Amino acid sequence: MRLRNKKWASSWLDEHDELVITQDRATGLQGNWQSIFSNEAPIQVEIGTGKGQFIIGMAKKYPEINFIGMEIQESAVAVAARKAFEDEHELPNLKFIFGDGAGVETYFSNGEISKIYLNFSDPWPKTRHETRRLTYRSFLSGYQTVLPSGGELAFKTDNRGLFEYSLYSFANFGVKFVAQGISLDLHADEEKMQDNVATEYEEKFSTAGFPIYQFIGQFE
Amino acid sequence: MRLRNKKWASSWLDEHDELVITQDRATGLQGNWQSIFSNEAPIQVEIGTGKGQFIIGMAKKYPEINFIGMEIQESAVAVAARKAFEDEHELPNLKFIFGDGAGVETYFSNGEISKIYLNFSDPWPKTRHETRRLTYRSFLSGYQTVLPSGGELAFKTDNRGLFEYSLYSFANFGVKFVAQGISLDLHADEEKMQDNVATEYEEKFSTAGFPIYQFIGQFE
Repeated sequence: MRLRNKKWASSWLDEHDELVITQDRATGLQGNWQSIFSNEAPIQVEIGTGKGQFIIGMAKKYPEINFIGMEIQESAVAVAARKAFEDEHELPNLKFIFGDGAGVETYFSNGEISKIYLNFSDPWPKTRHETRRLTYRSFLSGYQTVLPSGGELAFKTDNRGLFEYSLYSFANFGVKFVAQGISLDLHADEEKMQDNVATEYEEKFSTAGFPIYQFIGQFE
Repeated sequence: MRLRNKKWASSWLDEHDELVITQDRATGLQGNWQSIFSNEAPIQVEIGTGKGQFIIGMAKKYPEINFIGMEIQESAVAVAARKAFEDEHELPNLKFIFGDGAGVETYFSNGEISKIYLNFSDPWPKTRHETRRLTYRSFLSGYQTVLPSGGELAFKTDNRGLFEYSLYSFANFGVKFVAQGISLDLHADEEKMQDNVATEYEEKFSTAGFPIYQFIGQFE
């Protein structure tokens, strides 16, 4: 999803550098993220947070967990962060990184985060772009580094090709299913939907009748 | 799929015991199936062959491979075998076993068959019936025994719950994906459809707009 460029984004981000952390600063925080949240709660990260509906929803639903939304597009991270900033609830358990999924290993130390979410990632359908998919093995290797043993990866998409590819990539890398860890039509599963926080994109596509695929796996 | 009882089935099967092999006789043939086909071509087996459209289609499409359709329902195996018997083509490369998937280890010796097909198996949706699903670990263990190292398991279903369960079961058992080994909408994939032989059930459900799921895996 590419957003139109927002002229206000750059200066807004500069003015809210407590909420939205730049790549450089994120690198400096490696191993020290609990100082940012002023508590020792576990940290969960969404890579490619887009306009932020998911991570904001999670931060509200689980105040006992700290959340970080990572996003490489300046306009998107600004929209997401402003939405969090203007929310009627204060969300001290939510921060953003204006940065890249390939950077997780430089932002976090081994085992520093407890769960990673990938939601509706860019499918990069052409074979020559395989290495850009967020479920490509080099990314999985980065996730494994920053998660503890048993740390989880939760992945949702409506893109069949990306999901097929990703199941293959997870299996080859050795990411294990958790019990009930797969759904081929998440919105048809009442039990799983009780825990589901939808993204903007997910709401749109699910309403249009497309199945949402979900995988939850565990690194060894 | 339960067929109505066919009164002619039992005597027809008795009269065609070269084509349809009983469980007792199958057990006696363990390690010796190539004698039945009078050649050393690889043997592939469909477990739960139903009315036989798939296995007959395969036998026609791949005359250089020997096929066996296994089916526990007397009426179904009789319908399937009679269809093969009355076909305009002679199919020396096709036999049936009137028997049970749980029996594979007693019918075949280690590595005696090269590929197993499961098509639209009974989903047994209730948790307490998990052990009856043909992708339950005790069945996978049997398939592993009769397949050589690297032997393949090809599984198709329209049943989402069974497919979700089976992916989990395959992963836990250590059945590896082959490349391009998964499809979440087989009939939308032109390339894969070139190789696809549809079952009766598959044609009906795919035409009605339901996705057909496919997994092709390999035992170590």
